Amino acid sequence: MTLFSKIVAGEIPSYRCAENEEFYAFLDISPLSQGHTLVIPKREEDYFFDLTDEELSRMMVFTKRVARAIKTAFPCLKVGMAVLGLEVNHAHIHLVPMKTEGDMDFRKEKLQLSAEEMQQTAHKILTTFEAEK
Amino acid sequence: MTLFSKIVAGEIPSYRCAENEEFYAFLDISPLSQGHTLVIPKREEDYFFDLTDEELSRMMVFTKRVARAIKTAFPCLKVGMAVLGLEVNHAHIHLVPMKTEGDMDFRKEKLQLSAEEMQQTAHKILTTFEAEK
Repeated sequence: MTLFSKIVAGEIPSYRCAENEEFYAFLDISPLSQGHTLVIPKREEDYFFDLTDEELSRMMVFTKRVARAIKTAFPCLKVGMAVLGLEVNHAHIHLVPMKTEGDMDFRKEKLQLSAEEMQQTAHKILTTFEAEK
Repeated sequence: MTLFSKIVAGEIPSYRCAENEEFYAFLDISPLSQGHTLVIPKREEDYFFDLTDEELSRMMVFTKRVARAIKTAFPCLKVGMAVLGLEVNHAHIHLVPMKTEGDMDFRKEKLQLSAEEMQQTAHKILTTFEAEK
């Protein structure tokens, strides 16, 4: 069972931002900017491009909804997207609110947000996501 | 007309890696690693998440085919994906063959490949893409 499957199962806590029957979105605990969110398929698959055509299609439509909620909740120029995937073996998309291209620099120092700030951030995205559905 | 539309129209030359009626893939001229490719919709749209659900779905299926061809042509752990989009106002996906997460660091020094090496790189991806279709 991957780390992310344990998060989906609720065995490891997460800051939930959006969810449907097939996908789950939650805050990255080491955010590049406020609102940095991960989107995962609930089905375990290591490599993003091993997802089926149909899964990839549905995942992108879900991800677009999440990205829009993030942009409404945390105004920015664009929401950037990245799939790296060498550290956790469960496919995941990073969504990062961007004001400059440097906001997508994964080597930069991460934000330090308190648990309360993380909770408020996730709540703002989740309520926006639900309202825009 | 965006820079990328001029590339699609052939007004600006590019190293073509894959193409169908709706999407075009070509080498990034400042590659993070050999095989670093850009995938774009031929229709001009600035922000990736402003593409329609159907376009996003078809673009991901096309992108998956291109990523697979890149991985066959240039063996790597995974092909990473990124959408930044603050520099060119025409939605585009970066596909980068990765051996370490650092390979997706957009701040790092870019590879210097000769025109002949770029031509050979694109040819290898294109012939693999066509063979795997």
